[in-house]
Amino acid sequence: MSNEKMQQDFDTICARAQQAKSALAICTAEMRNNALTNAANLIRANSQAIETANATDMQNAKADALSEAMLDRLMLNQARINAIADALDNIATIADPVGRVIEKWDNPNNGLKFERVTIPIGIIGIIYESRPNVTADAAALCLKSGNVVILRGGKESIHSSKIISDYVRQGIKQAGLPEDAVQFISEPNRYMVELLLKAAGNIDLIIPRGGKGLTGRVMQDARVPVLAHLDGNCHIYVDDNLKDCNIAEAMIINAKMRRTGVCGALETLLVHGNIAPQLLPSLLQKLNTATCVIRGDDKVQQYSDKVEAATEDDWREEYLQNILAIKIVGNVDEAIEHINHYGSHHTDAIISDDADTTQKFMQHVDSAIVMHNCSTQYADGGEFGMGAEIGIATGRLHARGPVAARELVTYKNLVYGDGHCRP
Amino acid sequence: MSNEKMQQDFDTICARAQQAKSALAICTAEMRNNALTNAANLIRANSQAIETANATDMQNAKADALSEAMLDRLMLNQARINAIADALDNIATIADPVGRVIEKWDNPNNGLKFERVTIPIGIIGIIYESRPNVTADAAALCLKSGNVVILRGGKESIHSSKIISDYVRQGIKQAGLPEDAVQFISEPNRYMVELLLKAAGNIDLIIPRGGKGLTGRVMQDARVPVLAHLDGNCHIYVDDNLKDCNIAEAMIINAKMRRTGVCGALETLLVHGNIAPQLLPSLLQKLNTATCVIRGDDKVQQYSDKVEAATEDDWREEYLQNILAIKIVGNVDEAIEHINHYGSHHTDAIISDDADTTQKFMQHVDSAIVMHNCSTQYADGGEFGMGAEIGIATGRLHARGPVAARELVTYKNLVYGDGHCRP
Repeated sequence: MSNEKMQQDFDTICARAQQAKSALAICTAEMRNNALTNAANLIRANSQAIETANATDMQNAKADALSEAMLDRLMLNQARINAIADALDNIATIADPVGRVIEKWDNPNNGLKFERVTIPIGIIGIIYESRPNVTADAAALCLKSGNVVILRGGKESIHSSKIISDYVRQGIKQAGLPEDAVQFISEPNRYMVELLLKAAGNIDLIIPRGGKGLTGRVMQDARVPVLAHLDGNCHIYVDDNLKDCNIAEAMIINAKMRRTGVCGALETLLVHGNIAPQLLPSLLQKLNTATCVIRGDDKVQQYSDKVEAATEDDWREEYLQNILAIKIVGNVDEAIEHINHYGSHHTDAIISDDADTTQKFMQHVDSAIVMHNCSTQYADGGEFGMGAEIGIATGRLHARGPVAARELVTYKNLVYGDGHCRP
Repeated sequence: MSNEKMQQDFDTICARAQQAKSALAICTAEMRNNALTNAANLIRANSQAIETANATDMQNAKADALSEAMLDRLMLNQARINAIADALDNIATIADPVGRVIEKWDNPNNGLKFERVTIPIGIIGIIYESRPNVTADAAALCLKSGNVVILRGGKESIHSSKIISDYVRQGIKQAGLPEDAVQFISEPNRYMVELLLKAAGNIDLIIPRGGKGLTGRVMQDARVPVLAHLDGNCHIYVDDNLKDCNIAEAMIINAKMRRTGVCGALETLLVHGNIAPQLLPSLLQKLNTATCVIRGDDKVQQYSDKVEAATEDDWREEYLQNILAIKIVGNVDEAIEHINHYGSHHTDAIISDDADTTQKFMQHVDSAIVMHNCSTQYADGGEFGMGAEIGIATGRLHARGPVAARELVTYKNLVYGDGHCRP
């Protein structure tokens, strides 16, 4: 397809999104929730057709010699299709994020009354990779929050994503809402992504969902606001005020090894010098047994000859695999300084039984998510009780941490007077 | 100064801002408020020196043949200097926007406890024109909200702004905080603005404060998030359900004529056809007496031969002078459609005594500020009771409407566990 033709198609998509926008913004929560449950029912009822579409993607993926991990991410079966439908039903049950009065006040000086009420953001572009379930999740969160969405999935999952988006559109239509509230870009050419990233005025927000390569490109090229995170260089600091080293050990191993490829996985462990002799011998042994490679500073290396020497780069690295950097620090201040300097402002945790030290850490660590006595692998909208999440944001504006339906709204200011003329 | 030298100077400014950042982010509200009152006292005590610096600016401005309006904006006298100091004192008294728990919840499924707490955004760049008082206002709002600020004022007011920023810095230092929390770029070359607009990673947010030319350039060129509005094409819709046309008339005249050059000034009036015969004859006469030019559609022209014919462009125009476009509409839906189509999502008002129509208008009009029964000239952070404002934002993300200290914060998520490992 020529660039000119793609531009035309993209303009049509934007025009349809604009047309769908006002109906979505002002419809009742019931209509939006009906659209979600309709979509869930349609996906369940048509699981065979979805499996067939997915088989085409799988066949192409195998022909392209995709890795086992990627094939697994792409594959849909009956159970996974049901899980997609259940997620839609679940999003229908969460509280309505639209029309919430977030602030209310009077100004006694002029007698005016004020309200801040949440409203949808508008039109959201989602750029994602090969997981077909993102199609339903992302569409559902946008729909729940009254936003129109333009989806751009990876080409590997194009048949699976297309058919899922078709059932979501059908569910929307059945609910009496414009089906163009959800549109899927099925043209695989990357030029469509470029158009999406430059569509200021037509797209209010872009959310990339995928690996660092994708996110980095989106952040670099977008001329539209982006909510995302680039790195998840997560830390745990173990304080010396600690009653039970076994509990700390369990949290550290969980944070590192439960799933090494997720953004909330632990990458650097900071240990107070006083607690190191009690904590490290057993911890290093267990991590070693769990096939975790350790890169430590001089002091850590004294605890085991299996510890490799850490370099400056190790403090910055998001390994996303079974490698852990460990450093001994003198106190919580040193830990905070290290995290704010080398970290990525994603998720960082303190393990401590001291209230003051914990409070200091929670206040001073400049990250989207700061945790006390829990594994960093809880950095996830689902664990926050927010329903599905669309990603984790580490930028400074609008939303930080897990981004779900509640974060996909903005507000307007309502002002009530009584014939007021300004002096 | 060479571009290379300016880049070096700018890098130094950024490095100093980064260094000041953590002290500002974690200091007490008392320290920030002390800095503000110290600055107010220093400005009062040194009003003579400020007047002398201002005299240099005024002399240069006269030599450059600046307009009377611009000279008036630039000029400082004893009363205006006191007003600047009073504004600082006033900002010191408003509620602390930092460390506010904006949400708090538990997740019964995993037993974790969550808090969302406001924190400063970080480093804010303010680009403004020739009003020297903006120097103090902008610095104060950033300081109040724990943000570091880099100020870039217009070259006309450079001596006045520089000396004011020096006293603010001195006040900060007296409060035991790093004076680099406020920095003023005194190099007048526009290349410094370019550096500021491209400083992603060093600057978290840019706020332009000035005319449409300045704001448009900033929005166009910035690679850093911007809070601003480009246009203030404000509407009033007069419903047919109205007990007293005189009150409506007074609000309309106030909204148009109180100050025609402000962003909240009325630009297009929409009148329900049923009320036009009662409202328009007297209103058109009074507007005419007040030297306001009227551009109306066919129906409006029937009410007076002084009404010029409105063109399509008139519905889009932000006049910022004594011109008003008037259109007759059939009902509130037509008014809403007109406003959402031609408006600038800034401030729009309904005058009505019907609750249902009002509610519909408030919900459906997609603007940062939507008003009922009051003049659009109340679109101002001061009138909202927010203390000084730094501008009005019409973007979709983070903050909409007046932006003051409370809007210059973001949040982090605090998570409290009890030895939690994720299954």
